[in-house]
Amino acid sequence: MTDDVDRDDRPPGRRQTPADQATVRRSNLGLVLRHLRDHGPRSRARIAQETGLNKATVSSLVAELTDRGLVSAGELHRGGTAGRPGLIVHLDGATVCGVGVELNVDYAAVLVLDLTGTVLHEEREPLDVPVLGFERTLDEVARLVAVAIEAVGAQGASPAGVTLAVPGLVNSGAGIVSVAPNIGWHDEPVLAGLKQRLDVGCPVRVENDANLSALAEWAMGSEARTPDLVYLTGEVGVGGGVIVAGRLLRGADGLSGEVGHIALGDPEQVCGCGRRGCWETVVGLAALLRAAADPDDPVHDPERDLEARLAEVARRAEAGDERTLAALSAVGTALGSGAAVLINLFNPRVVVLGGYFAVLGRFLLEPLTAELNARVFGPGLAGARVVLSTLGFTAAVRGGAHLALEAVFDDPTLVPLATPDSPTRTEIPS
Amino acid sequence: MTDDVDRDDRPPGRRQTPADQATVRRSNLGLVLRHLRDHGPRSRARIAQETGLNKATVSSLVAELTDRGLVSAGELHRGGTAGRPGLIVHLDGATVCGVGVELNVDYAAVLVLDLTGTVLHEEREPLDVPVLGFERTLDEVARLVAVAIEAVGAQGASPAGVTLAVPGLVNSGAGIVSVAPNIGWHDEPVLAGLKQRLDVGCPVRVENDANLSALAEWAMGSEARTPDLVYLTGEVGVGGGVIVAGRLLRGADGLSGEVGHIALGDPEQVCGCGRRGCWETVVGLAALLRAAADPDDPVHDPERDLEARLAEVARRAEAGDERTLAALSAVGTALGSGAAVLINLFNPRVVVLGGYFAVLGRFLLEPLTAELNARVFGPGLAGARVVLSTLGFTAAVRGGAHLALEAVFDDPTLVPLATPDSPTRTEIPS
Repeated sequence: MTDDVDRDDRPPGRRQTPADQATVRRSNLGLVLRHLRDHGPRSRARIAQETGLNKATVSSLVAELTDRGLVSAGELHRGGTAGRPGLIVHLDGATVCGVGVELNVDYAAVLVLDLTGTVLHEEREPLDVPVLGFERTLDEVARLVAVAIEAVGAQGASPAGVTLAVPGLVNSGAGIVSVAPNIGWHDEPVLAGLKQRLDVGCPVRVENDANLSALAEWAMGSEARTPDLVYLTGEVGVGGGVIVAGRLLRGADGLSGEVGHIALGDPEQVCGCGRRGCWETVVGLAALLRAAADPDDPVHDPERDLEARLAEVARRAEAGDERTLAALSAVGTALGSGAAVLINLFNPRVVVLGGYFAVLGRFLLEPLTAELNARVFGPGLAGARVVLSTLGFTAAVRGGAHLALEAVFDDPTLVPLATPDSPTRTEIPS
Repeated sequence: MTDDVDRDDRPPGRRQTPADQATVRRSNLGLVLRHLRDHGPRSRARIAQETGLNKATVSSLVAELTDRGLVSAGELHRGGTAGRPGLIVHLDGATVCGVGVELNVDYAAVLVLDLTGTVLHEEREPLDVPVLGFERTLDEVARLVAVAIEAVGAQGASPAGVTLAVPGLVNSGAGIVSVAPNIGWHDEPVLAGLKQRLDVGCPVRVENDANLSALAEWAMGSEARTPDLVYLTGEVGVGGGVIVAGRLLRGADGLSGEVGHIALGDPEQVCGCGRRGCWETVVGLAALLRAAADPDDPVHDPERDLEARLAEVARRAEAGDERTLAALSAVGTALGSGAAVLINLFNPRVVVLGGYFAVLGRFLLEPLTAELNARVFGPGLAGARVVLSTLGFTAAVRGGAHLALEAVFDDPTLVPLATPDSPTRTEIPS
């Protein structure tokens, strides 16, 4: 810490007021923590060498990160023959976690990640959100979160943040869901309602589900760290999230990525939002099921698990059922027409398909690609690849949990120092 | 410069190798230059106070910027009664300039900005690019640039960079125009061809015209510095450029912002790109003129100046000509359907309409706004305003000139130090 003090002979632009010292310290704590996350366990000496921080500073930073339960050091033998065993520092996943919770038209889900990205807890339950209404849905969301926090608490982990994913327009600054037609919400004070019900002692946020899914793909998907990435998810509605130059596109109020209501659909078909001709009326789950099966077919039954219903659709397609194949082909083509718009606008390196698009993707890719080749303006799809998400229906909750943890990687001092009676990793069975 | 030397007791993360010293110096030169641009003329003492650099460093930096012809100092009386006259430093516009050159379907234009953003030279000439072909068009572009550089050279200014704006998909890294259907170019090595013809001793770049226009709006338009801005321009084609969080959206290869070929048009209408139903077939200039006037009407005559033809359309609309008004109304509605897509995707604070959309904007805004209200998903247009560009048909050349100058503001050492026989501002009549 002696390196952080104020001096008058600093290089230009580097002189610091006392307030800056804490900022530099926080920034360096974050630098070391992210370095361990991105490059894996290593010795203090190597951290110093690779980050440009001096050794004494690194030792002091590692000591503080240890006191905050974020890293641990263990003696490991080096590979090879040279040198003696080094004390290796690594992320300590056990004490800090991020909570992602998602509500959608017919389910709610929660997932907890520890600092290393390991899933500590996961739950998903059917929930008829449009019928339950706002207040009772929030009760249920709060209950799910409380159960999750209790479960991971028994393992010694405390939440660093909770993020709720909602399928609609979210003004995340204000914590208000402006419009979420598929669950029937308009101008709902979601953040206030959730905070009222939760006593978690950590930041709580509300975000658009597809934006969080895009973030999850960027952070931990099969195409992780692709700087220009478009995410498209098919559920009851259709959601989009975009990573531009490595950052989530948010727009002026966090309302960006609303792809579902582009007027690319059948002009006569009425959408859940009240408009006609929205894209999601031809690529949403309802459009597929309507085309694939009669109304009394069990694949329409909202009480059955969605994944089981999709598996049934896939089974029929594999068995060569013509109606199912035609429905999938029509969705694939329609999906291509909208994905082409996004490729033309964003010039991404990859388009990741999530939700039911991923589950049934093997039947969609051929018509989708044909339509992209016809409609994308740049040669060779302007360099874009289309891939199926490997995160399944957990992308949004993973993105929410990731966002909560990101705050810790930005500022590790958000996690309190361990007090003598607070547990640390070494005292807790994992 | 004594502040820039290496020290071992630097704060963490700040220790510098000798290579870093030059980087810090360049960065601080840029900091001072941008500070003068953004905040106006001021004393060295005030620059030091406001930037956190120390006074001796500021004096040294200002001396170097003066030697590079980028700033001047003049003794000015302070306002008010207190204090004695201070030596005020200001940007020196005279010796360094940025050159923007644009080619479009039926014209080429060049514009030169000095460092302060003042127009030093401007020229525009009709040019039938599709007929001339690639090589002869580049000859003409190179001639325009050479004339411009000679003209400003007579005023003592040297180019810091030249940027060519092209209406098509531009891979700016490679300097290749992949597709520009309205001028008939495919995979043309534009940058190489231009460099071959120009002997300018400064960087030359090729960029998409609408991206450059968006940059111009962001830098010097009526909505300058709006962090989330969408620019739409109507010419023979339709172009789009997007500023996301204060930065130009480029995508993986600089191919972003291709709005013209979204399938929002009449599905039967064939576009210049060979596809059917592209948005530009209903909002491009040809669509308006086709609807507004018979084929033999003089407003169709490509040999007449575009601005004169648009003025004639405006005159008819003001006189209440029903066919003209109906054509404008149809374009306004169609413009709204595409602008709604962009608002839903980008959540901008402002949409700037350029090209002929700005010239005839007063007749387009009502149907446009009605369509936006119907199709934008967020309430109150998700907080977006629609405004008409005040940059006229010069947006792309201004953006190009600006981009060339930005390099100097990032790194003032790109401009050579004045030698004893090279001119400086005080020796040159302006």
